Amino acid sequence: MAIERSSPTMLKKSRLFTPGPTPLQPAVQEALARPILHHRTDEFRAVFKECTAGLKQFLKTDDEVLILSCSGTGGMEAALVSVLSPGDAMLALVAGNFGERWAAIGRAHGMAVTVLEAEWGDAVPAERVAEALDRDPRIRGVFVQLSESSTGAAHDVEAIARVTRGRKDTVLVVDAISGAGAMRLETAAWGVDVVVVGSQKALALPPGLAFVSMSSRAWAAAERAETPRFYFDLARERKAQAAGESAFTPAISSVVALRAALAFVASMGGVDELVRNAGVLGASTRAAAQALGLPLVAPRAHGDALTALYAPSGVESGAIVKALKAEFASTVAGGQGKLKGQILRIAHLGYYDATDILGLLATLEIVLRRLGHRFDLGAGLAAAEAEYLRLTP
Amino acid sequence: MAIERSSPTMLKKSRLFTPGPTPLQPAVQEALARPILHHRTDEFRAVFKECTAGLKQFLKTDDEVLILSCSGTGGMEAALVSVLSPGDAMLALVAGNFGERWAAIGRAHGMAVTVLEAEWGDAVPAERVAEALDRDPRIRGVFVQLSESSTGAAHDVEAIARVTRGRKDTVLVVDAISGAGAMRLETAAWGVDVVVVGSQKALALPPGLAFVSMSSRAWAAAERAETPRFYFDLARERKAQAAGESAFTPAISSVVALRAALAFVASMGGVDELVRNAGVLGASTRAAAQALGLPLVAPRAHGDALTALYAPSGVESGAIVKALKAEFASTVAGGQGKLKGQILRIAHLGYYDATDILGLLATLEIVLRRLGHRFDLGAGLAAAEAEYLRLTP
Repeated sequence: MAIERSSPTMLKKSRLFTPGPTPLQPAVQEALARPILHHRTDEFRAVFKECTAGLKQFLKTDDEVLILSCSGTGGMEAALVSVLSPGDAMLALVAGNFGERWAAIGRAHGMAVTVLEAEWGDAVPAERVAEALDRDPRIRGVFVQLSESSTGAAHDVEAIARVTRGRKDTVLVVDAISGAGAMRLETAAWGVDVVVVGSQKALALPPGLAFVSMSSRAWAAAERAETPRFYFDLARERKAQAAGESAFTPAISSVVALRAALAFVASMGGVDELVRNAGVLGASTRAAAQALGLPLVAPRAHGDALTALYAPSGVESGAIVKALKAEFASTVAGGQGKLKGQILRIAHLGYYDATDILGLLATLEIVLRRLGHRFDLGAGLAAAEAEYLRLTP
Repeated sequence: MAIERSSPTMLKKSRLFTPGPTPLQPAVQEALARPILHHRTDEFRAVFKECTAGLKQFLKTDDEVLILSCSGTGGMEAALVSVLSPGDAMLALVAGNFGERWAAIGRAHGMAVTVLEAEWGDAVPAERVAEALDRDPRIRGVFVQLSESSTGAAHDVEAIARVTRGRKDTVLVVDAISGAGAMRLETAAWGVDVVVVGSQKALALPPGLAFVSMSSRAWAAAERAETPRFYFDLARERKAQAAGESAFTPAISSVVALRAALAFVASMGGVDELVRNAGVLGASTRAAAQALGLPLVAPRAHGDALTALYAPSGVESGAIVKALKAEFASTVAGGQGKLKGQILRIAHLGYYDATDILGLLATLEIVLRRLGHRFDLGAGLAAAEAEYLRLTP
């Protein structure tokens, strides 16, 4: 095969275009390489407090944001077990693989899970949430993704929060693991009760930390919640973290690196600029995809954290993913769950710039041409550049 | 100005597309970050010997290759003072800024310098070297650049060596600082007497090391040469380096990193593959330049270490350089010497891959459009991708 012959002779730099992990920000790499601090010291407490303050700005809230040493899924579980008791009714909005995870965590802890499903690629509209809550007033929690990473679709969290925030006994828990920092999220202004974020997404850190913000409504629910919990006991964390410590040994180097990551976001002008960056890169990618004949998985409900694309007719998406890796050492994500083997996913969240994305799109054109797809070379780039120019006048 | 408004809001990664320094290879970065070794130890001697062995492969010679702790210019001076005596006649082939450096070093040491000049952008043909040597048989050394970094032009070193190698008392000294590893160089097979290389070029190290290979003819000249020298006394270095040490304190971390750089070249399949890589990237860049209406500075004599381009009519090259830096944090080189302010130069030597160069070319299109140049968006990319596909079937 042609690609096999040519690939050994060209230099290739490993690049991740996956929606987590994302490329590490260089200041993060430097921070990770430093000698370790001890976590029960004033020096580390100062770092920790800077981080929690920075996370509040990142999530646009005055609520406490807790730092947990676990993956994003751990943060999801911590949030769920902290606001619900076994047997509680909960609503899981399922528009893809990660929506299913909310339902699975709820079932694992004995919750009465009602699922509101959307076609993969679509999102569950706020009206359906309102109807479901009207139908079953016992529902104590609504669980949703800001960005559904398996399809690139986004939920209208602002509209959903408008539904939940008037209902005293129902909290809104948002998995913003891949959405925060890539799409608009006004935690306080919208009235979102719990937000969960992962470190390996827009903040461009390695995986290993999760961040959970809790509103006063969420803390009230936590006081009532009887789900057994120890490591994920957020009330215990709240007490410790008020003093600049975590309840248990934290991932120290990752916290030091988190400070560097938050400083980088601040240096860009704050989270709004990072969101705008992902928005421009996402729009440019969608423009290229349309010009090249790669249909969007989420044409109506797309977010900006990533773009999920079907292969053009006659080409297998798996072949595209493999060829980008083999010839250019660029890793784009394939499909998950029921979209496995059918799509490719290109990340925009985090530490990506226009040169990254335009370079990837050019190599995508080369790979599509090798795989026999018919289009005018350069057409995707022309569309992406035009969209970039339109959005950055 | 539009660029000023848009640039603060988009993420930008600093990228060097300059013909030295070039981006550091990651294994080099890791090696540089290690704790220091002592240089008078068996551990370091083993590293040093691995490096000199690897450099022989890199330069395709069995001649000793000496490692000097200095910049490339230091390597040039070491070579010149080692093979000539004050008052000796020497021939400097001057096709640009770095050719002038050979003449300047010669004059600084009292040599009788004859200059063979070419128009900047052209190269001095081997026939003119033969004529000059016939005219003045006292000439003891011919000094030339493999790649003239100020114009992107290349000398036909193979043909020039055919002229010099039959003349017993005339050595050929090649500045391959930016050429080695980016263009064909068969030191032994062509009969090149002295080759000078710098670390911050194709080997993707920081500046600080120079490498000098010396043939037996060159060593014979060194025995006769009476130019005063101490730090640049290559005979002294030869003796020390045979034992895996340098005569004076070496740039230890850079030598450790050099081993990593040479291992990377070996992992690609050897220097021929690195040369091929630069060749494909150079050809793709030239194709894009033609499609976009940016004339080559060296249309007939171009090398592959870098591409030097004039701005399209109506656009200032300095504005292009500035805009790439301001909007995308990409640094391309401007002109040097008499081409200052007139051209831009894009590097291909070293640690660059297709994604890098295609990404840069896309941002170049965006910048050209902003600066008012008229062309079809995507035209440069279409040409570059087509050329890439043609050369990597």
